[in-house]
Amino acid sequence: MTPDVAQDERVRVDLSDRSYDILIGGGLLAEAGARIAALGAHTVGVVTDENVANLHLQTALGSLNAAGLKAETIVVPAGETSKSWEVLGRVVDGLIAARVERGDVVLALGGGVIGDLAGFAAAIVRRGVRIVQAPTSLLAQVDSSVGGKTGVNSPRGKNLIGAFHQPSLVLADAGALDTLPAREFRAGYAEVVKYGLIDDPAFFGWLEANHAGVFAGGPERTRAIATSCRAKAAVVARDEHEHGDRALLNLGHTFGHALEAEVAYDGERLVHGEGVAIGMAMAFRFSASLGLCSLADAARVTAHLAAVGLPVSPRKIPGGVGGAEALLAHMRQDKKVERGRLTFILARGIGKSFVSRDISEDQALAFLESELG
Amino acid sequence: MTPDVAQDERVRVDLSDRSYDILIGGGLLAEAGARIAALGAHTVGVVTDENVANLHLQTALGSLNAAGLKAETIVVPAGETSKSWEVLGRVVDGLIAARVERGDVVLALGGGVIGDLAGFAAAIVRRGVRIVQAPTSLLAQVDSSVGGKTGVNSPRGKNLIGAFHQPSLVLADAGALDTLPAREFRAGYAEVVKYGLIDDPAFFGWLEANHAGVFAGGPERTRAIATSCRAKAAVVARDEHEHGDRALLNLGHTFGHALEAEVAYDGERLVHGEGVAIGMAMAFRFSASLGLCSLADAARVTAHLAAVGLPVSPRKIPGGVGGAEALLAHMRQDKKVERGRLTFILARGIGKSFVSRDISEDQALAFLESELG
Ligand SMILES: NC(=O)c1ccc[n+]([C@@H]2O[C@H](COP(=O)([O-])OP(=O)(O)OC[C@H]3O[C@@H](n4cnc5c(N)ncnc54)[C@H](O)[C@@H]3O)[C@@H](O)[C@H]2O)c1
Ligand SMILES: NC(=O)c1ccc[n+]([C@@H]2O[C@H](COP(=O)([O-])OP(=O)(O)OC[C@H]3O[C@@H](n4cnc5c(N)ncnc54)[C@H](O)[C@@H]3O)[C@@H](O)[C@H]2O)c1
Ligand SMILES: [Zn+2]
Ligand SMILES: [Zn+2]
Repeated sequence: MTPDVAQDERVRVDLSDRSYDILIGGGLLAEAGARIAALGAHTVGVVTDENVANLHLQTALGSLNAAGLKAETIVVPAGETSKSWEVLGRVVDGLIAARVERGDVVLALGGGVIGDLAGFAAAIVRRGVRIVQAPTSLLAQVDSSVGGKTGVNSPRGKNLIGAFHQPSLVLADAGALDTLPAREFRAGYAEVVKYGLIDDPAFFGWLEANHAGVFAGGPERTRAIATSCRAKAAVVARDEHEHGDRALLNLGHTFGHALEAEVAYDGERLVHGEGVAIGMAMAFRFSASLGLCSLADAARVTAHLAAVGLPVSPRKIPGGVGGAEALLAHMRQDKKVERGRLTFILARGIGKSFVSRDISEDQALAFLESELG
Repeated sequence: MTPDVAQDERVRVDLSDRSYDILIGGGLLAEAGARIAALGAHTVGVVTDENVANLHLQTALGSLNAAGLKAETIVVPAGETSKSWEVLGRVVDGLIAARVERGDVVLALGGGVIGDLAGFAAAIVRRGVRIVQAPTSLLAQVDSSVGGKTGVNSPRGKNLIGAFHQPSLVLADAGALDTLPAREFRAGYAEVVKYGLIDDPAFFGWLEANHAGVFAGGPERTRAIATSCRAKAAVVARDEHEHGDRALLNLGHTFGHALEAEVAYDGERLVHGEGVAIGMAMAFRFSASLGLCSLADAARVTAHLAAVGLPVSPRKIPGGVGGAEALLAHMRQDKKVERGRLTFILARGIGKSFVSRDISEDQALAFLESELG
């Protein structure tokens, strides 16, 4: 892979009659109106959060109005707490009050929280209206807006309530990321790196060489987002409803989720992408310790994540996390545990990840102790 | 059609990889355990209402336990008010607490309220777990349990929040209807008559001859339920997501819904099936007044509905309903109104119903005045 000139990219998600385009480029929010009007909608229910509303709502609304669309906006508080049954109820009610009907569209304008919340609301209003995703965080652009997984959290666990609801269109405005806090950008970048580590060593190499451009904006950013979307789209096309093959996307997430749970999802201490960064570094160290991949590959992964400012060890989490047993207990509860066996995504090298279902609890415990001790 | 000996019937709903069986017969609740175990479930989340719990829960639970299944029961108050966002939230939470997982099953044990509520909860817990419908009202057995429409009401309108979620199996225990209040049985019977009026004149004739047997129980009842399910299954197979062809199922419902709205959904004054009975009689009288069908056919419809004790005129509704204008206003809000045109299901005779989209408001108003005046 080599960087190319600044231009919009288009990624097709192939799902027979639910296929759709992901458009990636600068200035797409200003085109939202024309593109949504082209879908035949009359009314657009815009769902966004307070932060994004302050920064980008005017652009979106101006574009919708210019295209002659009727727009009604529903603003929810920023942050994970809005992925709740109560807020979902308010969004659903707002969309019904706005008279969003079956031919109309819901526009999710925001990060992954808004995408998941608005996507789920669209799935259940009038038994399903169309959703257009306009992701404004890097994580949402490269991950959550693609694939149709929507939902909210239950007090009993994350994402336990939801639906598969594929978008009709994804508008990933790379320029909108200019306002994203640096820590959030880095967290999203961890998921970008993930696609390289799963099965695209050339992309990982390209990121090692071009990460500064991705962070600065410009053609490298668009390129990195498009490559990530293409990778996720391919997985989604093979396994729309997550029966098997999507598991590789969980690279770094088994450890990451356990760490997030250990800090009780306190975003001050650890945001999701940071957990994933630590988790990926751990997955490669675990793979090396099991003799599956070289120590050099593990070191290369750690070096790149650290180079962009991402954490790579559980010891670095402010306030610390519990012991190996506590982490293992979280992993047992993780939905990737099947019939009591621990499932890990491990690697035989960079870009050579695979699903391993035969790790014993003793092996996992010994490794966790080495990481925390 | 001629009555046959008492035996179970099986109706296949053909929806490619979402196909399923409807079993109709006596004693099916006592077989629920074995049949659900055969689906490979381990845990069953039973959702039911207080009335049905008192009468039939023990049979169902005994059967589940005997089959070695872990069962957890969630009981909600009886009646339409349980189809709400709040009760849905409690059911969803109860299913998550019961650890109903992706391979498991939710069992909807009750009338249409429970089927819609539990079916929707199953659609959104863990982005979808399987639902087995065990309908215990006649309306649920011949209508709501078949076709995968699930949902709850919004304060802004009925069934505005929901999902399509096809069951994995429907167990229609005809014997469970023995405990159903007579008024509820009659109301469900209106939907049975509807299938004859839509496109099966032989079935309507058979009902004229055999309605006493249907009400009394025995082979005629099983036969009538199976014929109704077969009719609905055929429509659903042609139009799973209700884009067009399902409209015929609304015979009697445009008028019926307007009447229900006029009494503010007060079930003391008018239950849904009674509104449908009046609505079907009105649809035939309207068709006759437009010269579409004979007065004799309209009279035959009215006579049969009246013979089983169903109301056939809006004048009979206790407390009365508003004027023609008020009814028309409800019809305009009905989701079957497209681009300001009134859609009616009319008939060229018994079993010759069709969708008419070219009725003017003046024609409708004149007819309504004749009905109310
Ligand atoms: N559906 C999926 O497949 C999937 C996949 C991965 C993650 N997720 C979900 O995504 C969520 C996390 O997404 P997220 O990290 O985007 O969180 P988020 O939506 O909370 O966004 C992070 C923060 O950035 C702010 N923000 C967003 N865009 C901005 C911009 N352009 N400028 C300034 N601030 C901006 C938000 O207001 C928020 O404060 C989680 O709930 C996770 O479960 C879903
Ligand atoms: N999903 C669909 O396609 C569809 C189609 C038609 C109607 N519906 C819905 O169905 C609902 C109406 O269904 P319903 O008429 O069954 O209402 P219901 O579920 O409220 O049942 C009516 C009454 O009968 C009681 N009952 C049920 N089974 C009984 C039994 N065996 N013995 C004694 N009492 C019993 C109930 O407790 C309730 O009091 C409405 O909410 C309507 O919107 C859905
Ligand atoms: Zn992630
Ligand atoms: Zn009905």
